[in-house]
Amino acid sequence: MRVCVLGATGYAGASLLRILAEHSEIKEIFAVSGSVPGTKVLDHDPALTPRIAEKMQSSHACFVDLQHAAGAGCDAIFSALPHLESAKMCAPFFGNSVVLDLSADLRIKDPTLFEASYNTAPPRPDLLDTAVYGLSEINHEQIRSADIIAVPGCYPTATLLPLIPPAAAGLVRGTAVVNALSGISGAGRKAKIELLYVERTENLAPYLPGATHRHWGEIKQGLDRSGTKLDLVFTPHLVPVKQGMLITTVIELSPGASLDAVRDSLEQAYAGKPCIHLLENTLPETRMVRGTNRCVIALQEDRGRLMLFSAIDNLIKGAAGQAVQNMNIRFGLPETCGLPLSGEV
Amino acid sequence: MRVCVLGATGYAGASLLRILAEHSEIKEIFAVSGSVPGTKVLDHDPALTPRIAEKMQSSHACFVDLQHAAGAGCDAIFSALPHLESAKMCAPFFGNSVVLDLSADLRIKDPTLFEASYNTAPPRPDLLDTAVYGLSEINHEQIRSADIIAVPGCYPTATLLPLIPPAAAGLVRGTAVVNALSGISGAGRKAKIELLYVERTENLAPYLPGATHRHWGEIKQGLDRSGTKLDLVFTPHLVPVKQGMLITTVIELSPGASLDAVRDSLEQAYAGKPCIHLLENTLPETRMVRGTNRCVIALQEDRGRLMLFSAIDNLIKGAAGQAVQNMNIRFGLPETCGLPLSGEV
Amino acid sequence: MRVCVLGATGYAGASLLRILAEHSEIKEIFAVSGSVPGTKVLDHDPALTPRIAEKMQSSHACFVDLQHAAGAGCDAIFSALPHLESAKMCAPFFGNSVVLDLSADLRIKDPTLFEASYNTAPPRPDLLDTAVYGLSEINHEQIRSADIIAVPGCYPTATLLPLIPPAAAGLVRGTAVVNALSGISGAGRKAKIELLYVERTENLAPYLPGATHRHWGEIKQGLDRSGTKLDLVFTPHLVPVKQGMLITTVIELSPGASLDAVRDSLEQAYAGKPCIHLLENTLPETRMVRGTNRCVIALQEDRGRLMLFSAIDNLIKGAAGQAVQNMNIRFGLPETCGLPLSGEV
Amino acid sequence: MRVCVLGATGYAGASLLRILAEHSEIKEIFAVSGSVPGTKVLDHDPALTPRIAEKMQSSHACFVDLQHAAGAGCDAIFSALPHLESAKMCAPFFGNSVVLDLSADLRIKDPTLFEASYNTAPPRPDLLDTAVYGLSEINHEQIRSADIIAVPGCYPTATLLPLIPPAAAGLVRGTAVVNALSGISGAGRKAKIELLYVERTENLAPYLPGATHRHWGEIKQGLDRSGTKLDLVFTPHLVPVKQGMLITTVIELSPGASLDAVRDSLEQAYAGKPCIHLLENTLPETRMVRGTNRCVIALQEDRGRLMLFSAIDNLIKGAAGQAVQNMNIRFGLPETCGLPLSGEV
Repeated sequence: MRVCVLGATGYAGASLLRILAEHSEIKEIFAVSGSVPGTKVLDHDPALTPRIAEKMQSSHACFVDLQHAAGAGCDAIFSALPHLESAKMCAPFFGNSVVLDLSADLRIKDPTLFEASYNTAPPRPDLLDTAVYGLSEINHEQIRSADIIAVPGCYPTATLLPLIPPAAAGLVRGTAVVNALSGISGAGRKAKIELLYVERTENLAPYLPGATHRHWGEIKQGLDRSGTKLDLVFTPHLVPVKQGMLITTVIELSPGASLDAVRDSLEQAYAGKPCIHLLENTLPETRMVRGTNRCVIALQEDRGRLMLFSAIDNLIKGAAGQAVQNMNIRFGLPETCGLPLSGEV
Repeated sequence: MRVCVLGATGYAGASLLRILAEHSEIKEIFAVSGSVPGTKVLDHDPALTPRIAEKMQSSHACFVDLQHAAGAGCDAIFSALPHLESAKMCAPFFGNSVVLDLSADLRIKDPTLFEASYNTAPPRPDLLDTAVYGLSEINHEQIRSADIIAVPGCYPTATLLPLIPPAAAGLVRGTAVVNALSGISGAGRKAKIELLYVERTENLAPYLPGATHRHWGEIKQGLDRSGTKLDLVFTPHLVPVKQGMLITTVIELSPGASLDAVRDSLEQAYAGKPCIHLLENTLPETRMVRGTNRCVIALQEDRGRLMLFSAIDNLIKGAAGQAVQNMNIRFGLPETCGLPLSGEV
Repeated sequence: MRVCVLGATGYAGASLLRILAEHSEIKEIFAVSGSVPGTKVLDHDPALTPRIAEKMQSSHACFVDLQHAAGAGCDAIFSALPHLESAKMCAPFFGNSVVLDLSADLRIKDPTLFEASYNTAPPRPDLLDTAVYGLSEINHEQIRSADIIAVPGCYPTATLLPLIPPAAAGLVRGTAVVNALSGISGAGRKAKIELLYVERTENLAPYLPGATHRHWGEIKQGLDRSGTKLDLVFTPHLVPVKQGMLITTVIELSPGASLDAVRDSLEQAYAGKPCIHLLENTLPETRMVRGTNRCVIALQEDRGRLMLFSAIDNLIKGAAGQAVQNMNIRFGLPETCGLPLSGEV
Repeated sequence: MRVCVLGATGYAGASLLRILAEHSEIKEIFAVSGSVPGTKVLDHDPALTPRIAEKMQSSHACFVDLQHAAGAGCDAIFSALPHLESAKMCAPFFGNSVVLDLSADLRIKDPTLFEASYNTAPPRPDLLDTAVYGLSEINHEQIRSADIIAVPGCYPTATLLPLIPPAAAGLVRGTAVVNALSGISGAGRKAKIELLYVERTENLAPYLPGATHRHWGEIKQGLDRSGTKLDLVFTPHLVPVKQGMLITTVIELSPGASLDAVRDSLEQAYAGKPCIHLLENTLPETRMVRGTNRCVIALQEDRGRLMLFSAIDNLIKGAAGQAVQNMNIRFGLPETCGLPLSGEV
């Protein structure tokens, strides 16, 4: 397979290059950078494996520009470009390649909801119906035949995976109170004062709480599409880790619903799913999933309420890894091909 | 004033020594250590200001044993000993000195609730009625004449300060969903694998969620005593900071209650309170309060629900600082005497 | 005393405001900001103690512009402005107030050495002879009568304090191999990619090693002025701490010189100096000095070579604290007035 | 191949399991634990890839005891047991399997030097001549036929790799002043107060400087064996990273030796060596090698002195990774088989 990565110098893009370099089915990689085209990839990012150079021979192991990539006839395109820019830049590829868009541009199907989240109309409303929402374990069947895949955000991935099975089974009701902790890489590689080491180390802070956060709409859409009528209160926090996301969800159990029934719904939904890990006697920690494409889940009851705990790596299962997982599904490869599954010691 | 610190080699004890060394009204300090009596305090803790030696002349600037301290006739005793040990060790001081107990031994008034939280009966049930719960801003009047003060835990302090005023005013109802993030020093200076740097850095984890956590009972008691009928779902998390605690509380607004009314209740409750800081246009960050005795609070509404955000330093306002604040109140000193109020740059 | 802080929104400036707000002899503070004049200081920096407002009444507790400050007739001016900007901006104050310049503009006396370090001529060559190099413990006498004080850099402070006494006594010879570890705040509050949390956490790196580093010249000047002929190899490293600096120096002992003689030279030089702490049986750690104006020093021998270890807080003894210490000396106040001396638990 | 890991629950052992689980030539793994035999490996370490279970079928995916492993007839044995315990426990395997000992027991060939470093005689003096020192790139030929391989320590690996080529070529002389920064995992998974998160975060400290450090002898032996007469001053520091090691070495260039000649010596020594990365225009950072088996190296001159910079991951190239690299070499596999080479974004 030949693949192309747009936005290859950001954190998600650099993560994609790391995964694709070791992916056994990828034979050729084009890395597109608007800022440093013509630069050698290994000069710009010396931490990358030298093995990637073997897969970049046709580009002399250099970043290329968009035009070059558009002419390369790639099987799959990964776009790690910013929201509101990504879908536009992918224009040359729609219809010619499978496009995996890691931005939010094609995730939200309701233009009003998109506008409420991003303060502007969706950039490609014509594609919203075609693009499949790439929450790999939930939408596996649609992904298999999708030509445009909107890769979910990190918060929606980590929140929806534990919540959709019990929600779809009617085991919970009312309002999901979701508290989310995110590593700083979730904010991207941007030169902002508030993202400096000195500002963030040993510091805890909520940010953009409530329905004003961009990911509120995406999570709400995910709940709605599971056929439920749940409301959502969402509070993200910035905490001093580089990569990692931890979600704690509290929601009322439906009358008659038990913790066992919730566990059953999760076991059934994720039987044979190699990237979901339902813990038995312990709670999730983000180091369990750091660097991996896994989501670990645990659950507990507190006097009639369900507590769901989930952890992912926001750059992998929350971005680059899930994108590759979707590519694997789409091209009939083993689902975890090329994807690391072991977390940290 | 002459004061004594029991458990002076733990994190809270060492914090007490730092504050008391600079406190203008403290003339003499006795530091009690069961493990290293006879050792020079500045040899054991070279980071302490050398100024403390001037206040420890009668003990030759050494740690003393309990017997020595009991004979010193101190005005106030701070106990930073572990739960279930503290109240017993303070026995020689009850009735002779003002005792400020930083442990949980005297905090919970209902023996059944204590037993549910600590798996054993309260060690000194005879003192539970006498001991005043030292949440400084809320129980100011009782503290002024108390001879035994149970210094609150860090989680209850940070949770109750923003919640009691609107709760007492009937502005909220139902269940408070409290998500708490704690710095690792909250677990004490204990040689445990799970507290190692390597296990905790870049790692996020919930622990003991729900009504099984020890602090659930203490927070619940605080809510009950404010005259409300609120329920509580409490989820603490360990996050990689040394000192700091951030609380996010979501609770339904009562019919007719507004965010402005909640703000009014807080402004009224904390007018003239130098350790409470109600933010206007920004959200709490723990670095704002690191090393200080302040609690910063912010609030927001999400479609009929109140979101409360609060931050403290778990070792200062959540332990050593609030103990000194209570001593100041009890002995008629300015409330913030000796207490740092500036957070980090 | 009335004082003024230029560059009050950077890390050193914000540290100055914290110290001055609690300094018993400071009655009035003017905080100058070029970027946010007119803004309330406590709105911009809500972590600052509210006590500062009492000392800023004449400016309505707002940042002022330079002109306003120039007309205020302050006793002392602290400039925490960037190199090559500071000395120019201080022009209105020279001759009218005592100026404490935290930048490098007036530190290096030899214009050629300055130019080698900063790639441009010194901005105020006319003042180089007048300005006293404010290494407080070494140049105490000159500081007492100085009207312009060049506050030393953090690397030179931490390197020279342990090295000058044995060097001046002829106890060492040859080349001092200095390895320095610096917290990230040493690079200032600048929106640069390489200073982001994600780039620096869990990451170790040397930077600008050798005689090309700006601080090489300043340290070399300090050694030369101590009357020695030592050479210097200097390697700074960026390590993931917010505040803190650790120096390890290796240098040959002169023939006949002993470790005891070196210790004597240090004890003699720093007898009665409250900000220098010579350790006996342990090695420096930066947490011992975090938030303090102290320098901790230890020494050891390795087969004829002297190893010196020293630690400071780069923002305090390495910047804001030493500036205030110099002000204290200049105005006949107790040397540690207003300066924290207790490090972290 | 069938392999066995002794000490599989420490940091190095857990790292070995992660690598071996993904290693394409490993068909069966036995994990030995003295403390938790019979426990399921994935219960004890839920962050491990579930793929490992497929390679542990004969042990039912459980930890086994030593006796069980000794009867399994493994091709290679990895021992990550503590010093002074490892060589004894490996007794059943010598002569029957290739033994890769990650402890120091067999590294130092001179019993006197061993005793100076470890305060006791070497546990298996009879094997010192047989055991090959497994610095992969330097001793490649001997490793190919070795049946006992003493895997080097992390400090010696990171120090010797950049230093041996110029030393062996006579390009440097005198004393190598080596300053080393180590991540905390280098101290092992031990429940000690001084390794707690609270004690180490935001803290920098030297420890055991000079010829008293255990690794001094091992590095000195490495220099001696390269045919040089260099002396060594070695100062390790603990810095707040989990995994990572950075070495800065300063040493005099021999008369007539140039920086280019040093670069040539390194290029020649490491041509075609996939785990050595000689940087051109940038300096090493530990994140470049985190999680990888690479060593990145840079060099610079400072007025007649050579500065060498090198970085490794202390758990991978400094322990588990180099052990597997040696196994690959010994069994004729591609040198980097199963070894990650991409560092962090």
